[in-house]
Amino acid sequence: MVRPEIHSMDDILDILVNLPPADDTATAAADAREPQLTKPAGSLGRLEGLSRWLCGWQGGHPPRLERVAVHVFAGNHGITAQGVSAFPPEVTVQMVANFEAGGAAINQLCKVHGASLKVIPVDLDTPTADFSLTPAMEPAELLNAFRTGWDTVEVDLDLLCIGEMGIGNTTSAAAIAHALYHETAADWAGPGTGVSGQGLNHKSNVIAKAVEHHRQGMVNGMEVLRHLGGRELAAMAGAITAARLLRIPIVLDGYVATAAAACLFACNSEALEHCQAGHVSREPGHRRLLGRLKMVPLLDLDMRLGEASGAAVAIGLIRSAVACHTGMATFAEAGVSDKD
Amino acid sequence: MVRPEIHSMDDILDILVNLPPADDTATAAADAREPQLTKPAGSLGRLEGLSRWLCGWQGGHPPRLERVAVHVFAGNHGITAQGVSAFPPEVTVQMVANFEAGGAAINQLCKVHGASLKVIPVDLDTPTADFSLTPAMEPAELLNAFRTGWDTVEVDLDLLCIGEMGIGNTTSAAAIAHALYHETAADWAGPGTGVSGQGLNHKSNVIAKAVEHHRQGMVNGMEVLRHLGGRELAAMAGAITAARLLRIPIVLDGYVATAAAACLFACNSEALEHCQAGHVSREPGHRRLLGRLKMVPLLDLDMRLGEASGAAVAIGLIRSAVACHTGMATFAEAGVSDKD
Repeated sequence: MVRPEIHSMDDILDILVNLPPADDTATAAADAREPQLTKPAGSLGRLEGLSRWLCGWQGGHPPRLERVAVHVFAGNHGITAQGVSAFPPEVTVQMVANFEAGGAAINQLCKVHGASLKVIPVDLDTPTADFSLTPAMEPAELLNAFRTGWDTVEVDLDLLCIGEMGIGNTTSAAAIAHALYHETAADWAGPGTGVSGQGLNHKSNVIAKAVEHHRQGMVNGMEVLRHLGGRELAAMAGAITAARLLRIPIVLDGYVATAAAACLFACNSEALEHCQAGHVSREPGHRRLLGRLKMVPLLDLDMRLGEASGAAVAIGLIRSAVACHTGMATFAEAGVSDKD
Repeated sequence: MVRPEIHSMDDILDILVNLPPADDTATAAADAREPQLTKPAGSLGRLEGLSRWLCGWQGGHPPRLERVAVHVFAGNHGITAQGVSAFPPEVTVQMVANFEAGGAAINQLCKVHGASLKVIPVDLDTPTADFSLTPAMEPAELLNAFRTGWDTVEVDLDLLCIGEMGIGNTTSAAAIAHALYHETAADWAGPGTGVSGQGLNHKSNVIAKAVEHHRQGMVNGMEVLRHLGGRELAAMAGAITAARLLRIPIVLDGYVATAAAACLFACNSEALEHCQAGHVSREPGHRRLLGRLKMVPLLDLDMRLGEASGAAVAIGLIRSAVACHTGMATFAEAGVSDKD
C-alpha cells in the first residue's frame, strides 16, 4: 500500500478515521490450525492469541517473524526548564550516541531477540517549546515530526517495536494522559528517570497547570499531541499509523510510547488494534493508561527504562508463539489421542 | 560437588536440611556492576534481579547462559482410574513419542530459546498406585524416582528448566497442595487438560477424600510426595535438589512442577531459593501455591500446557537480563552524564 502524503492536521485525521481492518481470512486460517495441534485447546494461552493477531495484521497465514525491527525515536523537551527530570537534558544526545556505539540496553536486547535497531533523532538541536508556557509544537512542527515517523517505517517488516529516548518525556506522557482522561495530574505523574518527594509534587503541579492552560485548544487527539507532546512522540504516532497501512504489527514499549498511541486512540478507538503493549512499566501512570486503552500488557517486570526495552523483551514471547503455531505437529501427524 | 548417594528417605531429609547457600561474593560483584550501567538505577526491574540471582546460584560473576537445558519428566498415574482427566492415560506415552519426534510445543520453544531438551520417562509401564485407595508409591519406588531426577542433571549446566507430562498429574498437584496448605480441595483443583462442571466437582471430591485418608501418614514433605505424588513429581524433586548442590539455577514450569517443589519447601523453607517460577499458569491452584512459596512468577500468559513450556518461554527473559548486565556500557565508558 502506498502511504498518502500528509500536508495538514486534517490529512492525519482523515487517515485515522479510514484505517484498514484486520484480515479475517488470515485469522480464520490461524483459528483452523490451532485446535489441531498436540495440546489441550487453549493451553498456550496468550501465545495462541499472539499468532492469531499477527496473522490478522500481517494479512496472511502462517505468521512470519523474519524481519523484526526496533525503532527508537529521540527528542528534546523545553519542559525540562521547569526542573521536572532527574537527569540533565544533554543526556538525550549522549544516549543516542550510546545507542549508535552499541552500549545501551536496547542494543543488547536486539541482539538477543534477533531484531534490527534504528535510532531516529528528531531535531535534537531544537527542543520543543516549554509547554508550561506555550504549545510544545507549532502545527508545522507537529506535522514534520509525525512525517518523520511516517516515512521511516520500512515496507517489508513482519513486526515493529516502538520506543523512545528523551529527557523530560514522562512529563509529556503524563500531561497527555491527564488531558485525555482527566483524573488528577498526580494520578499520572511518576518518577521517570528518578524524581521523588518534592520533585514529584513539583512535576505534578507543572502538569496540572499546563493542561489547564491549554484545555481550550486541545480539541482532538492530534491537538493534545501538539500542545503537550514531544517530537519523538509525534514521530511514534506517525510510525504507528504508517505501520497500520503497511500491514506491520506493532509492539509498544512503555508509558511514553503508549501516551503517543493514546493520541491516535482518541481520534479512533480502533486505531491501536494492530498494537500489543509489550509490557507494563513501573511508572504508575502506564498501567492506568493501558486500562483506558483496553490493552493487556504481555510482560510485567517492573521495568521503566524506555528506549523500547520492554517491547524488545516481548519479542521473545512473540517468537515463542509463532514457533509453536507453525512448528507443532497435529494430533493426526503425531498419532496422539484427542480429548475423550 | 559430588552428589551423595541416597539410600533412604532419611538421606533425602538430611540433604534437604544442609543445602548450600548463594555465593555472596558473586552477588556482590553483580551489585557493584549494575549501578554503573547506562540507565537509571533499577530501571531494568526484575531483569536486574535475575542477573544477581544467576550469579549467586551459579557461584560466579558474570552470569553465564551458554548451556541451558530443559528436562521434561513423564509419569503415569493410577488415579486416572477415578476418571479425573479429560484425556486418556495412553496420551502420556504418545506425547513422549511426540517430544522425541520434535512435534510438541516444548520442542519449538527449546529451538527459539537455545535450550537442549531431555525427556525422561519414569517407569511409564508402571503407573503409580491409585492414591484414592493406597499411597501412590512405596518408599522404594519414591526413592527410585527421586534418584532418577537426582542422577539425570548434568554437572555443567548454566540453567535448567523443569517440567513434566503425565495424564492425571494435576490431580496429584492439587492433592499435594491441599495436604500441605489445607484450605479446601476445591480451592486447589483445576481443569487440568480440560475437565469442568461435574467432572471438576468429582476431581475435588476424589482429592478431598484421598488427602483425608492419608493424613496420618504424611508426616513431612517427602511423605506427602510419596502418598500423593507421581514418579515424575518425585523425579523433579530429585532434579531440583541435585541442581542446588551442583550450582545450577532452576526455572520451574507450572502447577505440577511447583507442587513437587513445594514438597521440598515443606522440608526446608530455603530449599527453593535457587528456583524461579517461570510463569503462573491458568490452573487456579498454581497462583495460590506460588503465593504460599513466596515466589513471584516471571510470566503470566494464561498458559496451562505443562511440558516445561512456561519455563522455556521465560528463558528469553533471563537471556535478556544477562545480555544487559554483561553487554551494556558503563556511564564512564559511554560518556553519559549520571543523575544530577
